[in-house]
Amino acid sequence: MAMISPSRRLRRTPFSDGNEAAGVKGYTVYNHMLLPTVFRSIEEDYRHLKHAVQVWDVACERQVELRGPDAGRLMQMLTPRDLRGMLPGQCAYVPLVDETGGMLNDPVALKLAEDRWWISIADSDLLLWVKGIVYGYRLDVLVDEPDIAPLAVQGPKAEDLVARIFGDGVRKVRFFRFGWFEFEGTWMVVARSGYSKQGGFEIYVDGFDNGMPLWNALMEAGRDLDVHAGCPNLIERIESGLLSYGNDMTRENTPHECGLGRFCDTQTAIGCVGRDALLRVSMEGPVRQIRALELDATSVPPCDRIWDVTDARGMRVGRVTSAALSPDFNCGVAIGMVRMTHWDPGTHLLVQGPDGPIDAHVRETFWN
Amino acid sequence: MAMISPSRRLRRTPFSDGNEAAGVKGYTVYNHMLLPTVFRSIEEDYRHLKHAVQVWDVACERQVELRGPDAGRLMQMLTPRDLRGMLPGQCAYVPLVDETGGMLNDPVALKLAEDRWWISIADSDLLLWVKGIVYGYRLDVLVDEPDIAPLAVQGPKAEDLVARIFGDGVRKVRFFRFGWFEFEGTWMVVARSGYSKQGGFEIYVDGFDNGMPLWNALMEAGRDLDVHAGCPNLIERIESGLLSYGNDMTRENTPHECGLGRFCDTQTAIGCVGRDALLRVSMEGPVRQIRALELDATSVPPCDRIWDVTDARGMRVGRVTSAALSPDFNCGVAIGMVRMTHWDPGTHLLVQGPDGPIDAHVRETFWN
Repeated sequence: MAMISPSRRLRRTPFSDGNEAAGVKGYTVYNHMLLPTVFRSIEEDYRHLKHAVQVWDVACERQVELRGPDAGRLMQMLTPRDLRGMLPGQCAYVPLVDETGGMLNDPVALKLAEDRWWISIADSDLLLWVKGIVYGYRLDVLVDEPDIAPLAVQGPKAEDLVARIFGDGVRKVRFFRFGWFEFEGTWMVVARSGYSKQGGFEIYVDGFDNGMPLWNALMEAGRDLDVHAGCPNLIERIESGLLSYGNDMTRENTPHECGLGRFCDTQTAIGCVGRDALLRVSMEGPVRQIRALELDATSVPPCDRIWDVTDARGMRVGRVTSAALSPDFNCGVAIGMVRMTHWDPGTHLLVQGPDGPIDAHVRETFWN
Repeated sequence: MAMISPSRRLRRTPFSDGNEAAGVKGYTVYNHMLLPTVFRSIEEDYRHLKHAVQVWDVACERQVELRGPDAGRLMQMLTPRDLRGMLPGQCAYVPLVDETGGMLNDPVALKLAEDRWWISIADSDLLLWVKGIVYGYRLDVLVDEPDIAPLAVQGPKAEDLVARIFGDGVRKVRFFRFGWFEFEGTWMVVARSGYSKQGGFEIYVDGFDNGMPLWNALMEAGRDLDVHAGCPNLIERIESGLLSYGNDMTRENTPHECGLGRFCDTQTAIGCVGRDALLRVSMEGPVRQIRALELDATSVPPCDRIWDVTDARGMRVGRVTSAALSPDFNCGVAIGMVRMTHWDPGTHLLVQGPDGPIDAHVRETFWN
């Protein structure tokens, strides 16, 4: 693969200097911002993530801030998840859909107050959709991208490390809850969340200039925990069944196709702009859906485009959009969309990779 | 700089196989799609572009298609440029602004028919803004991203090459006009336009599968013209004063700050959502504006972040957002935003680059 050409348009983050000092080897671009993809090697990063602790520059999870009397109403317009029971201090994974029920983003929403929300977005300019809705409906709400840059601390030793910086109070923060904690005079949101299944926190670093001091403090405090710069890991996130917007789902897909039906309350999510479109699919279910696939392979090429999935006779029954070789599972692991005729666990399929067909079968999940 | 990590999310284009066969060395990401940045070297590509002809994969200029009775009204809502006089077959460079007058994109709009437009976008998910407006206003218009991939043919020999494929009719297409021309049974829009000042065309390739056949036909037909795969060239576009959305301007800037006031008819652009916000600035002018800067330098590092611009006493009076070394002008060339106190041609300034201050002065333009 080729080099990435630097330009201001591919925004650097408050932590870019830290990534470079740690020897970042690969980048992707996410919300017009640099996102590291590999430090030592994807496999080495993967093993390290599972036994130690990593600090991840996920500043590219940009925030869309909603502020004002209509903030709550607006938030409910965006998602078929019923948010009425949500309290300040809670996070919620929310499928966001357009008027046809197509996925626009799959962020984590943070309720800061009754009239103030952050939407921590995946890779699409959600701000533009929200601004369009606000303008069209003349809602009483300010929408903007604040100077907030998430920094994730992930891995089995994450809690110990974060407690050394923010105090033992963070240990009491439950999964998908957040609290406000101080770092050098600035109060920041610290949530128990993150794009791995190894446990950890996301710190919503307030102010670009606070980025490197916090980065350095974490690196210093975690030396005996074998802390290292890391990043969302391709292998681990596929094993963990964590979807990637733009890879595993796009505007073409409903939340139900993405296996996100459990985050939809289409009957009661009054005001959601995609509600009408989703009522039927929410009752009858989709005809294709995201599945974990096990690949009978000893090497897996980079999945840089859609790979067709066929049955033994060559009929197209789905597609794969993320794949990697898993050292721990000793097989290829993949995420794809499969037709209901072929989606039962155990079904034998062929994944049409660039080097020829790969034997595969549907799994319930990888992670248990 | 680091490698770019492949994934489906960074979409390949109909011409990616061609880029790879031609030895593409660098990429950027633009509208979630791969955009080549260098083939032989940026300097060699630059010299070749100015004397021969290049075929550019600009599929990343995604189209937002507007179709239906409200298409024209919607198009005018998006821009302060008065589009009433525009006829089918014409292109128009249109600043698109939000309700505050901030730039959302700077595309070329193509009027295909009274009720059908394409917006050939720069790097932001404009589709989401347009969909939000359409939904909020309940406009009678379909908005979507069609399967259209622009392929640019640029350079002094571009007309000869394009005529060999589409016939001599293309020679009659005037600047920023387009016609419909046939390639292997598919009618395609061919416009005299492109992101260089070397002349040429943009072919709006209809259908992914038509991409490589057309690419190959152009390469075959242009062999004696020294045709080569190319891409928008950093040096040439700065010399030519071509702005880059995300680099030289963002949502923070008005069109007038970007020197795009000549494309605004704020008084008469009735319906433009940013009209109220722009009325004052359109009369009084902005307090800072895009300027061409000549740098007294024999080398210019990559401009991957904002460089402050100061006066001799160190007071910040602007910033540079694109820069390169120009072989033809034998100096550094840069694009930046400068305060009105310091924007007159000839004004001496200091550009605070990563390796220290660079002497610079304001120019009217580079290209004449």
